[in-house]
Amino acid sequence: MAYTAEIIAVGTELLLGNIANTDAQMISEGLAELGINVFYHTVVGDNAERLTKAVEIARSRADIIITTGGLGPTYDDMTKQTVCRCFGRELCFHPDILEDIRLFFETQLHKPMPECNRQQAMLPVDCVVFDNPRGTAPGCAFEEKGQHVLMLPGPPTECSYMFKNRAMPYLRALSPDTLVSHSLRIFGIGESHLQELLKTQIETYENPTVAPYAKTGECMLRVTAKAASREEAEALCRPVVDEICALLGDAVYGIDVENLESVCLSLLQEKGKVFATAESCTGGLVAKRITDLPGASGVFCGGVVSYTNEVKVGCLGVPWPLLDKHSAVSRPVAEAMAKGVRRICGCDMGVAVTGLAGPKGDEFGNPVGRVFVALATPEGVFCRELSLGKRRERVRNAAANHAFDMIRRYLSGLEIEHV
Amino acid sequence: MAYTAEIIAVGTELLLGNIANTDAQMISEGLAELGINVFYHTVVGDNAERLTKAVEIARSRADIIITTGGLGPTYDDMTKQTVCRCFGRELCFHPDILEDIRLFFETQLHKPMPECNRQQAMLPVDCVVFDNPRGTAPGCAFEEKGQHVLMLPGPPTECSYMFKNRAMPYLRALSPDTLVSHSLRIFGIGESHLQELLKTQIETYENPTVAPYAKTGECMLRVTAKAASREEAEALCRPVVDEICALLGDAVYGIDVENLESVCLSLLQEKGKVFATAESCTGGLVAKRITDLPGASGVFCGGVVSYTNEVKVGCLGVPWPLLDKHSAVSRPVAEAMAKGVRRICGCDMGVAVTGLAGPKGDEFGNPVGRVFVALATPEGVFCRELSLGKRRERVRNAAANHAFDMIRRYLSGLEIEHV
Repeated sequence: MAYTAEIIAVGTELLLGNIANTDAQMISEGLAELGINVFYHTVVGDNAERLTKAVEIARSRADIIITTGGLGPTYDDMTKQTVCRCFGRELCFHPDILEDIRLFFETQLHKPMPECNRQQAMLPVDCVVFDNPRGTAPGCAFEEKGQHVLMLPGPPTECSYMFKNRAMPYLRALSPDTLVSHSLRIFGIGESHLQELLKTQIETYENPTVAPYAKTGECMLRVTAKAASREEAEALCRPVVDEICALLGDAVYGIDVENLESVCLSLLQEKGKVFATAESCTGGLVAKRITDLPGASGVFCGGVVSYTNEVKVGCLGVPWPLLDKHSAVSRPVAEAMAKGVRRICGCDMGVAVTGLAGPKGDEFGNPVGRVFVALATPEGVFCRELSLGKRRERVRNAAANHAFDMIRRYLSGLEIEHV
Repeated sequence: MAYTAEIIAVGTELLLGNIANTDAQMISEGLAELGINVFYHTVVGDNAERLTKAVEIARSRADIIITTGGLGPTYDDMTKQTVCRCFGRELCFHPDILEDIRLFFETQLHKPMPECNRQQAMLPVDCVVFDNPRGTAPGCAFEEKGQHVLMLPGPPTECSYMFKNRAMPYLRALSPDTLVSHSLRIFGIGESHLQELLKTQIETYENPTVAPYAKTGECMLRVTAKAASREEAEALCRPVVDEICALLGDAVYGIDVENLESVCLSLLQEKGKVFATAESCTGGLVAKRITDLPGASGVFCGGVVSYTNEVKVGCLGVPWPLLDKHSAVSRPVAEAMAKGVRRICGCDMGVAVTGLAGPKGDEFGNPVGRVFVALATPEGVFCRELSLGKRRERVRNAAANHAFDMIRRYLSGLEIEHV
């Protein structure tokens, strides 16, 4: 029988709309991976009475309650006290935890620990302590008559670390089954087309299950198997992953990877290649995305953001007649930009993006959303002509995705110009 | 007496962690502006039984219930049916709404309306219809014994439009008071320092109230007044806004503005100036952020992402000896980059960023987080030396903020090198 969990986020800043409840999203994704059903999320402010009510409601409908937030040292941090009162449990002082907190202040924050942080070393009697190397608030978990309560700190970087490294192992141990899950990342097939192609797998497969997730401008499939051991679960996943990869072909750009740019980074590192960017409508987004990744400096030398024709000509060496004849949004200009940046940077590949992100079209009659992406390589120049819709942000993101997809396909020896 | 609201988001995709509940954040921010208290958010899946329970709980503790999601045309969209059952209300067919939906399909989606969309024209008896120009799902509101129920579509772009243009006017009309709210955007003062400086205002002012909001790398204050008319509320706000501006000086970079780059865009447009970027550790982020804004092409000509020394020398004309002597992360190199990009682009200003975003320091002993931001102008070159912490993403964002802050200060005739 599958467990049911409820996530209670504690924090007035959430109710004021100051921040979104990304902790609940992150935890929900992890619980789905563990095969634990989530039926409700609740958000409640830093108020003992209302938190008590929320905990009582959650107790009546969930096997596992996970709280986030309210573990800080100030008077409005009251999650531990309130939850323990609900479950009739005392708090007790942990000297070793206090030592950890004092050490964190000394080594990480470089200041003495204020007295109020002592409160963070008070934890429920008979709990599993979740030590927190990312902050001062330890988390914890306890069991009460078959129900499990887990408390995690609220700041997203701490919460994410504590959930993945402390809560997930605790929850995994509750079930005799092991779950193994693989994410297939897909570019170039739309969500509805994907659902059609994999209707049988999504609707009828039970172990492993196949679930689609929509991401911005691309798709993801999660294949999840349950078995007595990791090896058996892996063995269940493998043929289904293979079956889907065979069906979708090279639209599957990676398994258990982060995004297109991280796949490019690995491929570039592996092949020892360096690329440069020439960006018009994406205005630096391709460069920004590759440099989001540590290690980018080994595979990316830089590039030019040529937002005006003057910069296309002056920096990239695009000939004026080409711009006059074909307009900046054209195949010949995209190709000249890619070749130009490859030449001036003296690297292996140049990728160029030129197009109209909107809100307006241009005087040449190019509609919003028309984008050319070109890749200059020692083997020649490749180019895609795209029509990416009307929303500025979406056009820019999709164009950057295509730039990375072309690099990936070139380095993988796949067909480059067609998606 | 202030109203109390609860937001119920309906959608299994939220419980699977597929998306974050950004609708609830957006709505909460608006409700705070209206002076309506939010005590709980609830998220529930596409399941009639569990939604019924969530609505019953919300009914027992809130004056206003706002649902998001579940207004689509398919069998798992059940918000209207379920909520109406809870409140003992029938649904009735609106032929004019069906006409709107049919028209939306024809003019926006360019395809005939499927039969299942008829369901979207079924709305509660005696409700206020919220027509939806952004999608096919109309929203609605009704009153039942003093409680108000509002139903909005789930997709964030639709939800945001419908909340601001339909729900907010409806809610505003519930109160005889008018609320006026102004946001002060602040750069260069930390959150805790700000709270200290404005302790009196934040803790004791009642009409208008002064509330701080933390944003990434900057701060925001919201001043909100309540009165019988907009004019009176404005008159209450004005002296407090002035008082805070006098206290914080030019750290207040704008009132009711979006972000630093949009303030720069306006200033650049106003003064008829154009700038270019030379980016090392931000890798295109400054360019990306200015080109996020429609109209950027009039004030931004482009720039160079010089991730390697070769590109700093080859494209920007930074002298090799400068790099050898001072390292790429140094004041002389930042200044040479800014001057270089201004020269090659032939524009009014060049802004340059060089630094270490991490995770590793360099062989010159520069620590992670050391960043130089330089601005080359006709009046000379200005430079800031910064220490921006250890987290790659935060370092990059903060560095880009400083680049925009220097442009803003230069164009506003303020001191540039010191924050």
